Amino acid sequence: MSDGPDSSAPSPAGETADGLGWRFSHLDRVRFGDLDAMRHLNNVAFLQFFESARIAYLRELIPEHDPTDPVDFGLIFAECHINYRAPAFFDEDIRTHIRPASIRRSSFRVEFRMTSERDARLLAEGYGVLVGYDYAAGRAVPLSQRVVRALDTAIAGG
Amino acid sequence: MSDGPDSSAPSPAGETADGLGWRFSHLDRVRFGDLDAMRHLNNVAFLQFFESARIAYLRELIPEHDPTDPVDFGLIFAECHINYRAPAFFDEDIRTHIRPASIRRSSFRVEFRMTSERDARLLAEGYGVLVGYDYAAGRAVPLSQRVVRALDTAIAGG
Amino acid sequence: MSDGPDSSAPSPAGETADGLGWRFSHLDRVRFGDLDAMRHLNNVAFLQFFESARIAYLRELIPEHDPTDPVDFGLIFAECHINYRAPAFFDEDIRTHIRPASIRRSSFRVEFRMTSERDARLLAEGYGVLVGYDYAAGRAVPLSQRVVRALDTAIAGG
Amino acid sequence: MSDGPDSSAPSPAGETADGLGWRFSHLDRVRFGDLDAMRHLNNVAFLQFFESARIAYLRELIPEHDPTDPVDFGLIFAECHINYRAPAFFDEDIRTHIRPASIRRSSFRVEFRMTSERDARLLAEGYGVLVGYDYAAGRAVPLSQRVVRALDTAIAGG
Repeated sequence: MSDGPDSSAPSPAGETADGLGWRFSHLDRVRFGDLDAMRHLNNVAFLQFFESARIAYLRELIPEHDPTDPVDFGLIFAECHINYRAPAFFDEDIRTHIRPASIRRSSFRVEFRMTSERDARLLAEGYGVLVGYDYAAGRAVPLSQRVVRALDTAIAGG
Repeated sequence: MSDGPDSSAPSPAGETADGLGWRFSHLDRVRFGDLDAMRHLNNVAFLQFFESARIAYLRELIPEHDPTDPVDFGLIFAECHINYRAPAFFDEDIRTHIRPASIRRSSFRVEFRMTSERDARLLAEGYGVLVGYDYAAGRAVPLSQRVVRALDTAIAGG
Repeated sequence: MSDGPDSSAPSPAGETADGLGWRFSHLDRVRFGDLDAMRHLNNVAFLQFFESARIAYLRELIPEHDPTDPVDFGLIFAECHINYRAPAFFDEDIRTHIRPASIRRSSFRVEFRMTSERDARLLAEGYGVLVGYDYAAGRAVPLSQRVVRALDTAIAGG
Repeated sequence: MSDGPDSSAPSPAGETADGLGWRFSHLDRVRFGDLDAMRHLNNVAFLQFFESARIAYLRELIPEHDPTDPVDFGLIFAECHINYRAPAFFDEDIRTHIRPASIRRSSFRVEFRMTSERDARLLAEGYGVLVGYDYAAGRAVPLSQRVVRALDTAIAGG
């Protein structure tokens, strides 16, 4: 797989990982500045890798809105959970698989799974919770119909 | 409270927050580089603030080991959870309160609570799980007696 | 000096450092995540400390514009130089002194000097170049009269 | 060019850029967390991209030493300069070209040139200065013969 414009395309490895549809993935590379005193990928950087993958996923899911512009997008990041499974190292390519889950009236989960591109070992897994938000009114709101439809289609395997 | 050597000292505000002993806190300041496209403290930076507070706490708890040297310290960060409560802004002083919880044979939790120094509003809360680890053997091990004693004393209010 | 709202106030220590008017300074603290494999403040983080101090300085200099909103502010960061003088360590308070210099038609320099709050040792010094920029037109433009006046006043010791 | 193990290999585009031998390059990707309030790659992140490319270059140049272990490597980063040329955006692949220059008794420069992988536009250029350093003695020392030979070979086009 090339790392050009199609690097966020369906990942065959991801799809077969557990049969539950890791259809989207995002590739990133460990920087020297991501290492901590043990020369491992620092635990904070895992959350940054998940963030980039989540943003890229939302951009694919709902192309007419821009997830890098939160006001336009109408979702806030309200909660996250990470289970660390194995260390990662300088210059490793990390693939973060993404899928939606637990869609409710005002929120949904985005689950992730980070693997090394070199040997496919599992590095971390977890999820984030996105909540519908009206920035003008300053309060949580139900997910827009557009978001709900896109998530339903994604979960149905579309 | 001064931000000099005693900035990690007991925080009266923290102690009375819920009567459950937020005896330790660590102060940090929001940098421009911590902001995201909304000019809020980015969600990833919250985990970095928790990390600094946790390291400072462990250094106080067990002075004879250096938590910035993981091999010496024998603990790894295995899991974390964050609930985001309110946005934070450029140049705000953030106080991260820390306390231990759920001490088991091989692991314990470190709970945190981040508040703004200006108006005491709650910004985030959550926890991390630290696991005893033998770097030479490359596997999880029971917590050392030294760690267990320090945690027991801390929880008992020592 | 307290680290509350007045932490960016004139620093007596800075003023007398070399008689050349380091009248503004900004205080920040080294995070665990700022350390590199040597457990020193990573070289990249120095630039982030300078950035926060520069933004805080510009906010004081020209209060009616918001330097965290570049479109509103009309200046871009075009060049920087850093000389590293000494390592800094976890949890150290770092004071970054700021002063303007070399004001030209379309640009000016912001010089900086980072010192440890604990022992006043010099950690780094350098400068950045800010250029007037019209985001709508997408090109460099002369500095606004408002910016030039504020800089002239600052350099004259106002 | 694939982004696998050979992503740091000679870049044909780099070689012909100016005839002066940009023989090494390192590929990285802009993260959401690298963006600032303008949704451009933040100026600090450019220095982090340069850092990763420089470390990867040194690892190729002198394989028997580990540049992620500064004590083993015997070089410190003493100075840097960056000229910013154009903004970069979320999810862009950035290629950082590296070459040595100005080899002296105790120091040398590493020059860099960052370009977008998509359209080859120039994003930034600059250099860093590396100085021979004896961590045990705590002072600058002449470059080791091993380093000087590797640099001479690199500059001669080896």
